[in-house]
Amino acid sequence: MQFFSFWRSLASFRVRIALNLKGVAADVVFVDLDADAHRTDAYRKINPQMALPALVTDDGTVLFQSLAIIDWLDETFPTTPLLPADALGRARVRGLALIVACEGHPLLTPRVRRYLDRELDLRDSQQNAWRRHWTVETLAALEGHLAGHKATGRFSHGDAPTLADICLVGHVTAAINQQIRPVALADREAHPRDRHGVAGIRQGASVRAAGYTGSDAAEVVCERVAKGQAEAQTCARLSLDRRPGERPATVMLVWSAGTAFGLASWH
Amino acid sequence: MQFFSFWRSLASFRVRIALNLKGVAADVVFVDLDADAHRTDAYRKINPQMALPALVTDDGTVLFQSLAIIDWLDETFPTTPLLPADALGRARVRGLALIVACEGHPLLTPRVRRYLDRELDLRDSQQNAWRRHWTVETLAALEGHLAGHKATGRFSHGDAPTLADICLVGHVTAAINQQIRPVALADREAHPRDRHGVAGIRQGASVRAAGYTGSDAAEVVCERVAKGQAEAQTCARLSLDRRPGERPATVMLVWSAGTAFGLASWH
Repeated sequence: MQFFSFWRSLASFRVRIALNLKGVAADVVFVDLDADAHRTDAYRKINPQMALPALVTDDGTVLFQSLAIIDWLDETFPTTPLLPADALGRARVRGLALIVACEGHPLLTPRVRRYLDRELDLRDSQQNAWRRHWTVETLAALEGHLAGHKATGRFSHGDAPTLADICLVGHVTAAINQQIRPVALADREAHPRDRHGVAGIRQGASVRAAGYTGSDAAEVVCERVAKGQAEAQTCARLSLDRRPGERPATVMLVWSAGTAFGLASWH
Repeated sequence: MQFFSFWRSLASFRVRIALNLKGVAADVVFVDLDADAHRTDAYRKINPQMALPALVTDDGTVLFQSLAIIDWLDETFPTTPLLPADALGRARVRGLALIVACEGHPLLTPRVRRYLDRELDLRDSQQNAWRRHWTVETLAALEGHLAGHKATGRFSHGDAPTLADICLVGHVTAAINQQIRPVALADREAHPRDRHGVAGIRQGASVRAAGYTGSDAAEVVCERVAKGQAEAQTCARLSLDRRPGERPATVMLVWSAGTAFGLASWH
């Protein structure tokens, strides 16, 4: 299989995590978004949408759209399932994933940033406010569905990572990249007028640094701190596309007492 | 089952079509987006994201996000399947649906329009250009995947409607509502500099008006004209949420010779 990816593409990131969780090998072909490599005729023949990611199977079939690719991977490589075994559970996990994929992420993509910049000529402060607004709104929506729900466990749904976590960790990464302030989502309710100043990520003082494995790829470590529990518990290690030449990163995704938050530790 | 919907919500529209194609009954509860009914505490308890649609099963489980709901409906009510039987086919149909759900539609939602209006204070012409840009880009992406693909049949995938058509017809409806000019997508290639003036919808002179059934609900009729074929062929009748008191509409969705286009006939 060939996996067309780029280090900065959050949609590619999702597929990368799924491949790694399942231990499925694919030849990675980097398509440099910064150099508009996705708009070349060569890539257009692979994916007429000229978007990342794409996965080409050994028989030459081109799969596109990250969630469709992950669904196919999950059906084709059933080890380490990424969707629950029951229909209602699958619906919840898909719903959580789609909150990110259909509502948060689409407003943060490079093509939207380009439009805000070139067509609307927005100031940097306006563009930052735009990104922050949709990032926080999406975190709040996730929080609303995760907090206090009986199916929320060590991960978004139960005690193993699913498609929901794959999408969530990407969105938290986007929040971290924006340096969204470590303020609890709960505080947002207390300051409803502060629409842009608050954030969906808070730093948990009780969380210890996740161990970096020393592998060549960057590591994403999903952790969860149980309510009132002082020690973090490593749940999974998920590899993340690394920019060539860049040092690996450890991102810890944590939620506690119903509040999703994250930490980034750049080695 | 209770189906929380609104006549103008394109995401609700998708679920409505799925319910009708499968012949599954649900009690429809209108949530008036124009009156901010989705932001009330009552609805927030149902869907913490405060978005439409939501489907509440008979045992009280709340399903959210249109594509997750449709997946659940397809698993639970297998008559008239909305996804192909093979994994690669499912991946293609999901990918086509996600082009609309994850890329086109999210940029056209009321909450985004509100942000453009209230936060960015864009002029009407700028807002129209925004909507047109993303609508046409999405139609072009769909076209790129549908045109000339061996799996494209009377519908997006094979000869029966799938999840891809459900999403496509909603997007075509959005294009029609914008009165996008009847210019072929093919013409877009000839005028690459005309980024906003061209459109993804063209009127087929050979297409006869689809018969209105006279039912109380509005009807969406998907049709297809085979390459070179003069007569349209009705493939399906899909009910669409109707605004209370409004006259029913017939929308014909057609593609021919690899070019997706649509017609609207408002009775």
